[in-house]
Amino acid sequence: MPSGKRGRFPVGTPILDAARQLGVYVESVCGGRATCGRCQVEVQTGQFAKHGITSTLDHISPKGPKEERYERVRGLPEGRRLSCSATVQGDLVVDVPQDTVINAQVVRKAATDRVIERNSAVQLCYVEVDEPDMHKPLGDLDRLKVVLEKDWGWKDLLVAPHLVPQVQSILRKGNWGVTAAIHRDMDTSRPFIIALYPGLKNEAYGIACDIGSTTIAMHLVSLLSGRIVASSGTSNPQIRFGEDLMSRVSYVMMNPDGREAMTKAVREAVNTLIGKVCAEGEVAREDIFDCVFVGNPIMHHLFLGIDPTELGQAPFALAVSGAMQFWAHEIGIEVSKGARLYMLPCIAGHVGADAAGATLSEGPYRQDRMMLLVDVGTNAEIVLGDAKRVVAASSPTGPAFEGAEISSGQRAAPGAIERVRIDPDTLEPRFRVIGVQSWSDEPNFGKDVEAVGITGICGSAIIEVVAEMYLAGIISEDGVVDGTLATRSSRIIPNGRTFSYLLHDGAPRITVTQNDVRAIQLAKAALYAGVKLLMEKQGVDHVDTIRFAGAFGSFIDPKYAMVLGLIPDCELTEVKAVGNAAGTGALMALLNRDHRREIEREVGRIEKIETALEPNFQQLFVDAMALPNKADPFPKLSAEVNLPPRKVLAEGGEGGGRRRGREGRRSRE
Amino acid sequence: MPSGKRGRFPVGTPILDAARQLGVYVESVCGGRATCGRCQVEVQTGQFAKHGITSTLDHISPKGPKEERYERVRGLPEGRRLSCSATVQGDLVVDVPQDTVINAQVVRKAATDRVIERNSAVQLCYVEVDEPDMHKPLGDLDRLKVVLEKDWGWKDLLVAPHLVPQVQSILRKGNWGVTAAIHRDMDTSRPFIIALYPGLKNEAYGIACDIGSTTIAMHLVSLLSGRIVASSGTSNPQIRFGEDLMSRVSYVMMNPDGREAMTKAVREAVNTLIGKVCAEGEVAREDIFDCVFVGNPIMHHLFLGIDPTELGQAPFALAVSGAMQFWAHEIGIEVSKGARLYMLPCIAGHVGADAAGATLSEGPYRQDRMMLLVDVGTNAEIVLGDAKRVVAASSPTGPAFEGAEISSGQRAAPGAIERVRIDPDTLEPRFRVIGVQSWSDEPNFGKDVEAVGITGICGSAIIEVVAEMYLAGIISEDGVVDGTLATRSSRIIPNGRTFSYLLHDGAPRITVTQNDVRAIQLAKAALYAGVKLLMEKQGVDHVDTIRFAGAFGSFIDPKYAMVLGLIPDCELTEVKAVGNAAGTGALMALLNRDHRREIEREVGRIEKIETALEPNFQQLFVDAMALPNKADPFPKLSAEVNLPPRKVLAEGGEGGGRRRGREGRRSRE
Repeated sequence: MPSGKRGRFPVGTPILDAARQLGVYVESVCGGRATCGRCQVEVQTGQFAKHGITSTLDHISPKGPKEERYERVRGLPEGRRLSCSATVQGDLVVDVPQDTVINAQVVRKAATDRVIERNSAVQLCYVEVDEPDMHKPLGDLDRLKVVLEKDWGWKDLLVAPHLVPQVQSILRKGNWGVTAAIHRDMDTSRPFIIALYPGLKNEAYGIACDIGSTTIAMHLVSLLSGRIVASSGTSNPQIRFGEDLMSRVSYVMMNPDGREAMTKAVREAVNTLIGKVCAEGEVAREDIFDCVFVGNPIMHHLFLGIDPTELGQAPFALAVSGAMQFWAHEIGIEVSKGARLYMLPCIAGHVGADAAGATLSEGPYRQDRMMLLVDVGTNAEIVLGDAKRVVAASSPTGPAFEGAEISSGQRAAPGAIERVRIDPDTLEPRFRVIGVQSWSDEPNFGKDVEAVGITGICGSAIIEVVAEMYLAGIISEDGVVDGTLATRSSRIIPNGRTFSYLLHDGAPRITVTQNDVRAIQLAKAALYAGVKLLMEKQGVDHVDTIRFAGAFGSFIDPKYAMVLGLIPDCELTEVKAVGNAAGTGALMALLNRDHRREIEREVGRIEKIETALEPNFQQLFVDAMALPNKADPFPKLSAEVNLPPRKVLAEGGEGGGRRRGREGRRSRE
Repeated sequence: MPSGKRGRFPVGTPILDAARQLGVYVESVCGGRATCGRCQVEVQTGQFAKHGITSTLDHISPKGPKEERYERVRGLPEGRRLSCSATVQGDLVVDVPQDTVINAQVVRKAATDRVIERNSAVQLCYVEVDEPDMHKPLGDLDRLKVVLEKDWGWKDLLVAPHLVPQVQSILRKGNWGVTAAIHRDMDTSRPFIIALYPGLKNEAYGIACDIGSTTIAMHLVSLLSGRIVASSGTSNPQIRFGEDLMSRVSYVMMNPDGREAMTKAVREAVNTLIGKVCAEGEVAREDIFDCVFVGNPIMHHLFLGIDPTELGQAPFALAVSGAMQFWAHEIGIEVSKGARLYMLPCIAGHVGADAAGATLSEGPYRQDRMMLLVDVGTNAEIVLGDAKRVVAASSPTGPAFEGAEISSGQRAAPGAIERVRIDPDTLEPRFRVIGVQSWSDEPNFGKDVEAVGITGICGSAIIEVVAEMYLAGIISEDGVVDGTLATRSSRIIPNGRTFSYLLHDGAPRITVTQNDVRAIQLAKAALYAGVKLLMEKQGVDHVDTIRFAGAFGSFIDPKYAMVLGLIPDCELTEVKAVGNAAGTGALMALLNRDHRREIEREVGRIEKIETALEPNFQQLFVDAMALPNKADPFPKLSAEVNLPPRKVLAEGGEGGGRRRGREGRRSRE
């Protein structure tokens, strides 16, 4: 249990052997010497009608001297047995424990609800090496290889170069008993000895890391148990070279040492973050043997030390698109000297290894329904498909969704408005502020908000306020603020030739201007047009399920996203935020090397659409400027939400908004 | 020609294609674009009765525009054609030229007379890479790999990490036409792109290097033509840490930074020597892509940065015995950043990669006669065998053969006596001095020798003078100088309780003392006993052929070596000096990677004998103290040389000589 696999074995078969014969993965480092304690199991006792057997403690062999020694020295929890030593003596129901201390988990729940079967690239193998013999003058390293093949089946082993001068002293320090860390997912095909320790070494860790333009997120994971030991994040220090990706590319183009400086900055941040997760998890960074990274193409290139200039201009050529492997130290990552670094493949010039990670995590290709996977940032990365076919594109949404280009926009931080509702009759708003429990119309709000103040609108609230303005009739289908309402409500205030909506009359005064609405329209139109283009490629008029990846997706309300026409019509219950799916994909590739082959294969199959080259993108974009859309009906949304009737208004400032939008886009084309 | 292979091809077949179909190796870098000029051939005209054809210039296609352009731009020697462009139009006899300029040699003569078939690890491949395409967003590196597979058949290519950030700019600089250097002998099984150049790159070099305790010798070779561009040597700067190997091991044991200092010294010397051969050959060191090294076990370890302490004491454990590969820069070798370094395997703790190189060069395992291969230095490395079985050992000869421990001994340099003859009737000597043409009994000698003087006896002359003293009856079979002869000749002079032979009465006075004779006896007995032990293992009472490797072997006269009983009885014509056979082996492994597999396989088959562990070594050693030997007859030598009758003499100083000998040996045991 819990796999439910069963079989018949001769009396006296070690439980570990029985598990292996059944294909149940039970970890073992010491190779059955009853010293590593990794192979613990537990017997369930009682009558199991389901299995038709009675399992009793008499049916497992009593503890032998080796197991007793382990219990005395290292301690064994009540009921636990070492499966390498305990043997089958009769019918047994055996639990392979799922706990997080020293054990062997067959599967584990990841950051998401997904079960990740464990098959990591690194295995620890304890061996006892023959002592040197003048009659058979094989070198120490060569005899180590011989016993690793004999005891563990490793053929054609290579050794990390830095270990060559250390092998002799490690073997002697361990009195010829050593633990080798073997990496079996080298791009070079042959397994490598990447680390070597005197005696028994019982832990090996890995990191999975998503390098975002804004945030770097990392998991520290035990490669032996699959347990996530620590997760943390830090801001990307490249921000000081430019807020968004294109400004960072510009920085490289303008400054001779720009690429180097940004590579150094991101690598230093990763190293600092490794220090942080290691401190949190009480793990030595030298015990990290494997690293998996994802990132958008520009982060991918800068992290690997590649000039990203080509990604800033058509044809957006990636220096390298395939999955890459390095020694971690070659990339300046400070972990075990023998640690490897795996970087997921990029899908296209604007659809990076992060999108590949999210694709691996959500797996549109693993299921039959048409899945839309959207990762919204400065660029939106869009993947659409099912088991038959997957297409992908990116769309230049610009930074509006992150609160930039919005008059009162700000990053999500205490004091930022995060939720907004507008009464369609009175046009009065109520809202919630990050760091404050109560809504603005509740009695305690005034007192509660004093500590943080009301400082601006964050990304998720911009979506909501514009959608609520539309639902309340404040803006038309075309996004024009209805100035005639100024007579009905003091919230509608003139602003030059256009009108604004007064969300909060304090210091600062928080309004949603016509230009703000335009910026959101441009961003959402870009995203929707990209999605629509992929739907046309797939020949579908609707999607079955939608996954929002990334921080932005975690905070926005699917209903408002749909009211705005950011995403296509879909059952609201089928729209799910999946958090940092890119990071989850990295974690999957870290814990199971089969997932590396899987995403390498799938990325090769994904069809990449360059939106800029598609003739009808412009028309789709224009249609998508309307709320929710000029051309597409939203029947499923309409069933849940009362969409207002069509209202056409002229707007003085429209040209300005459009012009700025085109300028924003020009930098990419 | 010269392979003599023949075949029938359709009219219009390019000669290059015809050659390849016949399995004749003709180099081509540009892939048939008529730009690299590597594929030159020459048509022999006339009636060839042997082949039954008439070959005329009408039977090869006239020069086309591409070939004419090449001739105009790069020049083509009279009669030469580019085989990629010239096609078969009728019967032809085609020469693949053996010259040394820009061409493709099928085979070449190495430093020795051996023919080395060329199959180097590095191949240059010119390709034209597809430009980036937004519809197929494969990375630049990935498209490079695609075309290298399509045009040249390279599958699963990897890329040297340092190239990753450079690929984009190189492709653009070459306007999508680039030359990739592919290394196809990686220990990692998959071929690597190790260097990349814009446009056509037409030269690739390699070095073969033998790191001796005293001298480092190097060949610089064109990997495309096989031509040796330069050969040079330098003294090993580790000499300042200790003259012989054991004193260097002691230095490491006594000094905390000793290993590091010696590693640094030898790597610097190798780098300086690379500079020297590159200057001589007018080659840029960045154009060196492959390096092969040999050396004795202690040099092997120190060069690779491994502590050699274990090699200084039983059981003489090698840290690593198998062949090793590194990136050259990992070992601090300053050549192309992508260059690889291959180190031949070691045979045993005292029989190193140099012995493996000599074994590869001389190939006892390639033939049916019983071959003895001896490399005499401070340790003699001995290999004995044939195609059926090869055995190897080392024997601690000590430094006597190199002139150390000899009262008038010196290194081979101008002024050193190098040849000696003694008249058996008068006991008067005549000799030759390095740097002087005439013998000492010739009229001009007095004047000729003034420039250099007469300063001592070098290694080869010590062999000769002791052998001549024996043949003249001055010393007995047991090596005792016959003091009774002092009455007959003023050359026999008392020296304490023993007698010396006065070789030259000048300043300095050059004598051969009883202790000198003892030192030579101990050294030759150690060598012979080792050889004899291997002969016993092989179950043979004689050897068919003897190869003397190393500088020492090049200067000694086989006859005197045999009179002394340094080597077993053998036809004198079958005793050959083969020079730096270890270096020749390195060269073979450089030019043909099949030779790497060959020596890796053979080293695994060689049986290693540890002389110190053999019970009868002591008896063999005692027997071998006699001249030529107490137990073994020398029938073939006796047929050529008049060996003196047995003469037994008592010697006062014998105990002293023995005692010193034991002390000398103790340091090894």
